[in-house]
Amino acid sequence: MAFRHLFFFVLLSVFISTTFSQSLIRLPTSLRKSHVEAHDDDLYCDSWRLSVETNNAGAWTSIPSQCRLFVQDYMTGKRYASDSDVVANYSLNFASTVEIAADGKDAWVFDIDETLLSNLRYYELHGFGSETFDEKSWDEWVELAEAPALAASLNLYDQLKKMGFKIFLLTGRNENQRNVTAKNLLFAGFTNWERLILRGPSDQGKLAIIYKSEKRSELVNEGYRIHGSSGDQWSDLLGFALAQRSFKLPNPMYFIG
Amino acid sequence: MAFRHLFFFVLLSVFISTTFSQSLIRLPTSLRKSHVEAHDDDLYCDSWRLSVETNNAGAWTSIPSQCRLFVQDYMTGKRYASDSDVVANYSLNFASTVEIAADGKDAWVFDIDETLLSNLRYYELHGFGSETFDEKSWDEWVELAEAPALAASLNLYDQLKKMGFKIFLLTGRNENQRNVTAKNLLFAGFTNWERLILRGPSDQGKLAIIYKSEKRSELVNEGYRIHGSSGDQWSDLLGFALAQRSFKLPNPMYFIG
Repeated sequence: MAFRHLFFFVLLSVFISTTFSQSLIRLPTSLRKSHVEAHDDDLYCDSWRLSVETNNAGAWTSIPSQCRLFVQDYMTGKRYASDSDVVANYSLNFASTVEIAADGKDAWVFDIDETLLSNLRYYELHGFGSETFDEKSWDEWVELAEAPALAASLNLYDQLKKMGFKIFLLTGRNENQRNVTAKNLLFAGFTNWERLILRGPSDQGKLAIIYKSEKRSELVNEGYRIHGSSGDQWSDLLGFALAQRSFKLPNPMYFIG
Repeated sequence: MAFRHLFFFVLLSVFISTTFSQSLIRLPTSLRKSHVEAHDDDLYCDSWRLSVETNNAGAWTSIPSQCRLFVQDYMTGKRYASDSDVVANYSLNFASTVEIAADGKDAWVFDIDETLLSNLRYYELHGFGSETFDEKSWDEWVELAEAPALAASLNLYDQLKKMGFKIFLLTGRNENQRNVTAKNLLFAGFTNWERLILRGPSDQGKLAIIYKSEKRSELVNEGYRIHGSSGDQWSDLLGFALAQRSFKLPNPMYFIG
């Protein structure tokens, strides 16, 4: 009888523990190792992303191979939206401290791609930035003029307009994309910008940081006070003729120098 | 006998399922709600931290109240160490591209607190930065001269010395803390710096960003080429007489303007 009880005990133990306690089942060594590696990758990729966002990484050409899935999860999950929301809120907090003069010279500069417009639908089809940049497919995407607004940026944009800021859009896109760019901005809900500045013939081949600094310089020479500048690239925000405050939007997909 | 078996089964089920399957026990609604809120807090706090590290947050006085535990977990878990490692690696990658001249004028500037030395032991006793800064207890901690090195920074420091960089330590600590600061640096393993620069009488009351820019300016006037600068505060890295490349170390505990 004691033996039968023991047998019953063992059988039950195995049944119940495997049914209700799957988390305690030991994985084969190889699976456990890859689980650990995935966790280590997430830790590393999060640190890599921070280095990109703080400009510690400097120039970089592609997402580290072990971080492709991490970037995909980041961009398509809640984190990208949350990070964008918080940046927009800090931008708005600062903007509300600016005294708007009657001369119409209080300005805010926005980059466009991954700042006002989200090209996530394009990058979803192109490895979230892990593929080499393909100008042909990118230009086709731009011609569609269907990129949606980044929600947090559209709200910021509208609030700034209400406050009385003049909005300047300063993009690395080319002059021959002016019409589709304006069309896309309107499609996404952006209206009444003061000026849309694109790369003209004399801007070709310049580093983005130089081109954008020169264009901000022209605004300053026209008497504009650039209080704020919003961009997903450090080349939108550094250089010269800087805004009083610059706001770095998140973008772990690609780097423009 | 059948009844005894049933009783045995029930008893065993309860014992085994409560012992091995705690994760399956349903929490009361209130606890589950706070779990969801904790998750939302984590999402927000991670975005807040990114805004601090990218300087989007601008000046801030204390950790958001819902982020105290988040900051504690970040600082004491793997993430702070991982983020610090990755910054040090990018710093080293850049340093290795610098051609060191024979004139002994190739310089690297380090901040001290939360850059070379970790004051985590102090901040663990003071709410991880969530308490108002208390100068008396801070000065007592500094007098102990027992802050350990940030491991990633000590390795970077030693590598830079081997490469031939002259190391300048530029801290917001006061001149009257020179001896204990040098003692602490040696205790933590830092040796052979070129110069330790502290706030003298004429630097009192200056914003850190001005004081540090002026001191870097003096180095430039002495003929030093400041290739790199490492600091946990943007006031270590912005202003004038900037390094060629600046490296922002993580610090979600406090802000110095």
